[in-house]
Amino acid sequence: MKGLIPQNMLERGTIVLESQLDPLRILFEQRIIPEDGWSDSQIKLLLTILSMMDTDKDPQSVRVGEREARVASPLVSELAADFCHGIGRSGEISAPQPKAPGASIMYTIVNMLASDAIRRFGAPNLKHAFLLPLPTGMSIGLTISAMRRKRKGKYVVHPRIDHKSPLKAIEFIGLEPKIIEGELEGDAVIVPPERVAEAIDEETVAILSTTTFFPPREPDDVKEIAKIAQEHNVPHVINNAYGVQSREIMKRIRSAVDAGRVDAVVQSTDKNFLTPIGGAIVAAPKQETLDEVSEQYAGRATAAPATQFLAAILALGVKNYEKLRDEQEKNREYLEETLKKIAEEYGERILKVYNPITCAMSITNRTPKKVGGALYNLRVTGPRALGPTDYGSCYKKYPTAYITMNAAIGTQHQDIEKAIQKLEETLKQVK
Amino acid sequence: MKGLIPQNMLERGTIVLESQLDPLRILFEQRIIPEDGWSDSQIKLLLTILSMMDTDKDPQSVRVGEREARVASPLVSELAADFCHGIGRSGEISAPQPKAPGASIMYTIVNMLASDAIRRFGAPNLKHAFLLPLPTGMSIGLTISAMRRKRKGKYVVHPRIDHKSPLKAIEFIGLEPKIIEGELEGDAVIVPPERVAEAIDEETVAILSTTTFFPPREPDDVKEIAKIAQEHNVPHVINNAYGVQSREIMKRIRSAVDAGRVDAVVQSTDKNFLTPIGGAIVAAPKQETLDEVSEQYAGRATAAPATQFLAAILALGVKNYEKLRDEQEKNREYLEETLKKIAEEYGERILKVYNPITCAMSITNRTPKKVGGALYNLRVTGPRALGPTDYGSCYKKYPTAYITMNAAIGTQHQDIEKAIQKLEETLKQVK
Amino acid sequence: MKGLIPQNMLERGTIVLESQLDPLRILFEQRIIPEDGWSDSQIKLLLTILSMMDTDKDPQSVRVGEREARVASPLVSELAADFCHGIGRSGEISAPQPKAPGASIMYTIVNMLASDAIRRFGAPNLKHAFLLPLPTGMSIGLTISAMRRKRKGKYVVHPRIDHKSPLKAIEFIGLEPKIIEGELEGDAVIVPPERVAEAIDEETVAILSTTTFFPPREPDDVKEIAKIAQEHNVPHVINNAYGVQSREIMKRIRSAVDAGRVDAVVQSTDKNFLTPIGGAIVAAPKQETLDEVSEQYAGRATAAPATQFLAAILALGVKNYEKLRDEQEKNREYLEETLKKIAEEYGERILKVYNPITCAMSITNRTPKKVGGALYNLRVTGPRALGPTDYGSCYKKYPTAYITMNAAIGTQHQDIEKAIQKLEETLKQVK
Amino acid sequence: MKGLIPQNMLERGTIVLESQLDPLRILFEQRIIPEDGWSDSQIKLLLTILSMMDTDKDPQSVRVGEREARVASPLVSELAADFCHGIGRSGEISAPQPKAPGASIMYTIVNMLASDAIRRFGAPNLKHAFLLPLPTGMSIGLTISAMRRKRKGKYVVHPRIDHKSPLKAIEFIGLEPKIIEGELEGDAVIVPPERVAEAIDEETVAILSTTTFFPPREPDDVKEIAKIAQEHNVPHVINNAYGVQSREIMKRIRSAVDAGRVDAVVQSTDKNFLTPIGGAIVAAPKQETLDEVSEQYAGRATAAPATQFLAAILALGVKNYEKLRDEQEKNREYLEETLKKIAEEYGERILKVYNPITCAMSITNRTPKKVGGALYNLRVTGPRALGPTDYGSCYKKYPTAYITMNAAIGTQHQDIEKAIQKLEETLKQVK
Repeated sequence: MKGLIPQNMLERGTIVLESQLDPLRILFEQRIIPEDGWSDSQIKLLLTILSMMDTDKDPQSVRVGEREARVASPLVSELAADFCHGIGRSGEISAPQPKAPGASIMYTIVNMLASDAIRRFGAPNLKHAFLLPLPTGMSIGLTISAMRRKRKGKYVVHPRIDHKSPLKAIEFIGLEPKIIEGELEGDAVIVPPERVAEAIDEETVAILSTTTFFPPREPDDVKEIAKIAQEHNVPHVINNAYGVQSREIMKRIRSAVDAGRVDAVVQSTDKNFLTPIGGAIVAAPKQETLDEVSEQYAGRATAAPATQFLAAILALGVKNYEKLRDEQEKNREYLEETLKKIAEEYGERILKVYNPITCAMSITNRTPKKVGGALYNLRVTGPRALGPTDYGSCYKKYPTAYITMNAAIGTQHQDIEKAIQKLEETLKQVK
Repeated sequence: MKGLIPQNMLERGTIVLESQLDPLRILFEQRIIPEDGWSDSQIKLLLTILSMMDTDKDPQSVRVGEREARVASPLVSELAADFCHGIGRSGEISAPQPKAPGASIMYTIVNMLASDAIRRFGAPNLKHAFLLPLPTGMSIGLTISAMRRKRKGKYVVHPRIDHKSPLKAIEFIGLEPKIIEGELEGDAVIVPPERVAEAIDEETVAILSTTTFFPPREPDDVKEIAKIAQEHNVPHVINNAYGVQSREIMKRIRSAVDAGRVDAVVQSTDKNFLTPIGGAIVAAPKQETLDEVSEQYAGRATAAPATQFLAAILALGVKNYEKLRDEQEKNREYLEETLKKIAEEYGERILKVYNPITCAMSITNRTPKKVGGALYNLRVTGPRALGPTDYGSCYKKYPTAYITMNAAIGTQHQDIEKAIQKLEETLKQVK
Repeated sequence: MKGLIPQNMLERGTIVLESQLDPLRILFEQRIIPEDGWSDSQIKLLLTILSMMDTDKDPQSVRVGEREARVASPLVSELAADFCHGIGRSGEISAPQPKAPGASIMYTIVNMLASDAIRRFGAPNLKHAFLLPLPTGMSIGLTISAMRRKRKGKYVVHPRIDHKSPLKAIEFIGLEPKIIEGELEGDAVIVPPERVAEAIDEETVAILSTTTFFPPREPDDVKEIAKIAQEHNVPHVINNAYGVQSREIMKRIRSAVDAGRVDAVVQSTDKNFLTPIGGAIVAAPKQETLDEVSEQYAGRATAAPATQFLAAILALGVKNYEKLRDEQEKNREYLEETLKKIAEEYGERILKVYNPITCAMSITNRTPKKVGGALYNLRVTGPRALGPTDYGSCYKKYPTAYITMNAAIGTQHQDIEKAIQKLEETLKQVK
Repeated sequence: MKGLIPQNMLERGTIVLESQLDPLRILFEQRIIPEDGWSDSQIKLLLTILSMMDTDKDPQSVRVGEREARVASPLVSELAADFCHGIGRSGEISAPQPKAPGASIMYTIVNMLASDAIRRFGAPNLKHAFLLPLPTGMSIGLTISAMRRKRKGKYVVHPRIDHKSPLKAIEFIGLEPKIIEGELEGDAVIVPPERVAEAIDEETVAILSTTTFFPPREPDDVKEIAKIAQEHNVPHVINNAYGVQSREIMKRIRSAVDAGRVDAVVQSTDKNFLTPIGGAIVAAPKQETLDEVSEQYAGRATAAPATQFLAAILALGVKNYEKLRDEQEKNREYLEETLKKIAEEYGERILKVYNPITCAMSITNRTPKKVGGALYNLRVTGPRALGPTDYGSCYKKYPTAYITMNAAIGTQHQDIEKAIQKLEETLKQVK
């Protein structure tokens, strides 16, 4: 660009440009999540450069295959961030795709950042990770399916969680869940690890434990289950759906990996990393495990969840993520405090259940359905108001009706403030 | 807007605006593929309006759930066309999602257009269809998994196709492929339907036949296989990966559905409808089948493949699609003609194999690998140059080496022209 | 959309959609700046709908003129927010353009909002306003040129401001500035109104006074000048470049309009309303004046500055704008406080000059050029460090060198904090 | 990016990337219009890189000026292609702006390409050119204003053209047009050069001649006028509004420059280069002239017209532009042919007027206003149907009513086809 503008001006411009390109270079070199979040234009530039490496952009190429990433209009391409060839090979989702060098680099970086995220945000002993363009449920299916390669059998031992996705995933891959019922311990519903141990037999393909669910169900004691898994030499998969956001939950996972057998841990991208719905991260102590999971995926896949995760994690950066976690913790505390006040005022009480994200209050004098309905009409989304026998408590008949509220990552302080206000309104109105 | 500009000017502007909004209204009313393709700005407007119906856009909502479609930056949302809640419910992928009325309407329309596409472009007896945000392989997995609900068993009878994805899908869902070997019939490799019939037993969950593959393998005789499926009362799934583009292939499918049992037909969106990779359409004579397939999907899914298909099919419209098919047919003819000339000149011949998309020429005086390599270096993508025992012929030892070239939908006449030129260059150089 | 998703879900979606469309409807009805700022997607939607009314979008039109808004590529259109026909008619910039009903409505609304802004943000007696797609300087040129229609002459009486733009504008339209020199009043440089009165003669076309400049020059006493203008029956134009941001400056303008003759007031869009550079708002007590200014513009114009202003003022809304003004006031106070501390420490003093945006400190022991250079190297943009005879003080030889710093609208508290830090660094280093 | 994907794949990806980046590098080196047009993503990338050099993007800068390119929302910035600082300095529009190195480079390149366009597309002796972010009319104003610097006076000698913009421009800058009336020469209205010569006197600031207008007015004989200008030593400005598209018109300009005195030639960007409305190119044999024009502009300006021209000329490239000109010539021929047929059929005739873009047919048996109105209702834009005394013929009373139609650059063959059809419809209906 020399000679186009005065040299000192050009130098200043170059400094400004470099200050924005540097993070891209550093990313290519260090391959870890940046400390500071990127601007949207930096992320766009990265995506542009990478998508410009895919062979469908080659102006000199001659394309006579049946799948050449031709698209119906520029908008269609734009909707895929120009990664029209998707990611992966028919044989293996995480393998580089020769027609898509750019998307392959993109996906490789995504997996490096996903892996960095899991290690850095609490589980350094989960050394490897990769992203699947599938929700947590489907990803659990692929993971357990990979387990089956080495250990034939019929069953997946699964401490009861009242959530359909994991069950569907188990059935989808041709296995049966062996559900271990919960027990009451004070307010909490827990599944004692010894029940898990008892359920294991020769036909057990794997154990599927869970860290994040809403009260009164407490997180599984994954450390004890890991020990049992090791003892019985049974694969152990942890459903850590929205656990990465919580330092406490990640600590439990880390301990489990240290103490016993954990083959893989599956977590959602949208619930932990503020992406749109569609991806999950599978982490494991061994790369081999991930290779096997990767081989379960039949066909090339949409690049969208990988692209969205990349954009989200770069927009966040380490500092912002930790800041969001700090806020999450404060919000959780604030949620409990204010809920407590309301509870006292309306003759209810907070359920004593360990849960670093969600909080529950009893509902004794009102119909839970009506409370839920009233909140919905007040445009509060997220709370669950359940009766003793409703699906959700993970227990045959829970002693009381209750309502749960979340202080998940990304929730604003004022969301909780308003939610509590609306809850109070509701309690006043509903009988 | 009255009074802002002179009335006659406003009227003119309104007419122009209406001429662009009318197609949107008609789509909402008729719910079929428009005759004329839409402009990108019309498609964008539709996506904007729909995404503005999702609850994460509600400025008055209070969000205290663990999954509220919060995103890390505006760009992250943009990468999902603002459908941050994805599609589907944990229980069923095609069910409307209460948090995402807009995405749900979008996906419903997508499924209506997908269904219209299958009926209109050749198989009116496949009355129902829906899109899965998964590649063809994974979608075949879900489809066969749904078959298993009613018919327990271990095996999938599968006339041999040298493609890994379907096999992986079968294994992934916990079944085993029972592969029926191909036989030679002149140049063609075919699998006689009677071999399929012989392979069926009590443990057969389903038959998986195939319509599109490259020569020397010919399409399966899906009509005969459909009759056998009906006779034996066995579910029959057709892998129609890139068959929608071909009027002939669609005719074969239509006949199969009329003549016997076809439970579901699976086709790729990218190979048939010029979308980026990532989606498949499952079509079936009965809605019930699709409901069952839909229930196999564990979790909510990325909206990207649905959004991209919607954009592509609206950008195309019926007229353009039929025009593209006309061109495909002409290109296929032209490909064979020019390849024939080259073949004659270089002592080769065209293999006599029925295939409405792909054409193959023998390679007798040269090493196929070298031919393939030379073409790759000349930036020709798509051709396959294989030796007699290479994976791909679907036959133990094919009598000759050969090279295949495609005239798939969207290929330009000049692509074929140039590919043939480069092939000639190659044949001159390579010994 | 009925029947596509369950009715209650559709209703919810419709409520969410309406909550976003309502502001558009209200804008069309009320035609004033909204209280709350809009989201970028709302603004985009408005621009999309309007640009879809321009005749170049008409799919049925037949275009055989020499100017039909044909563009080289979709991107070129996008760069104009699809307002390819620009705004205005050859005869009059603010007249509706028959080929562009959408852009004409857009521009009409822009002018209504510009007018609302001037009235609402401090000068309700400036009843009319419109936007020119030109910088303040050029806009002053057009304005004075319109004055000339009724009052022939050669000169523009102009209290000295050391800024080239207005002078160029005066010369450009074929007139000569009659510059009234400044005088010292304590630290302040002022131009006594009586000097203005003395300078008026028969050949005076107009008086051009100024409200915003940097110290030591103080704002002109526009009230007194307005009285003089009325008395002498001379047109009076006020250059209010970045005065809208300041409640105090706007009060002075209001008083001037009430007290005497003010024909037009010109202000920049970028300096007051956070738009990119390129537009100015001309406000006047009489619509007739604006019509005459509008008729000075020869040709149709780029729509960009109007579009950008529309987006900016909608993104802001009244509440945010007032909040930004509050912050500006606090920042101005904070700037003076901290600058005072530094001044005391380094043997300097704050110049006593009335200026609600900018603050100046003497430089007695250092070379101003070096101070300015050092700050530039520390990447501080905006300060002016000038010696006694430098162009900028509006006075032949100002008693001291000095440096100015701004607390303009949009400046962050931390910008000022850092600027002061860097100034301290500079003072330490520079001798 | 080493090690992220297999080396051979990376090499392929790099080749594809380079093939897209090469044109950017070549542009920076050669600074001329590329032979082949660029893709929209290449253009976007160029704009991104340049806008990232402007100081408002500097994450480390501290901004305490009154104008720091702060914007109200990301969309506002996007609407300016992120060139928020605009272009130019208060003192000179074409001078580089220290706060905006990127926009300054952009604008410098724009001016180089504008200059290349004028030279390459027909006037190599107009060695210098630059773009003004103003329409042709205003640009003529600036140009003549610059002429005045060296030659004081009151009048601009202007062969009559019935177009308001140039007249307004002349008055706006404080001069008076001295209009030279047209004369009949067969069907054509021309202004004999000797009349121009006669009109020149000591008070003449400049001559303003015109190359493009619609029949019956013929282009001015710019060569003869140039000779007269030289002889009388009077500045000569040519209004070449939409003449660059025509090889013939450009030849006339070239001859004029060679034969006599041409100070500057002004042409529209939108009418010649398929950009949105808003810019003009001023070309001159001497750089000095342009510097003086540039100094007339008071203030910094919107970057939009420059950005749009850059995008358009890069999207086109030399080859496409010449192709568009070929089409224009064919369309002009076709227009005359078909119009002739219609004329014969309906008792009218083609006016014998030299005009390489527009064609005119007499209207003798119908009311021109009705013909025009009927065409408007049939959504034909562009034709002008005028009666003998209507403003437009450039003659006091033209012998016949007539209608004109254009075959301007970018017009499609089918536009003309349809326009003629609609004209026939009209002639049938209208009496």
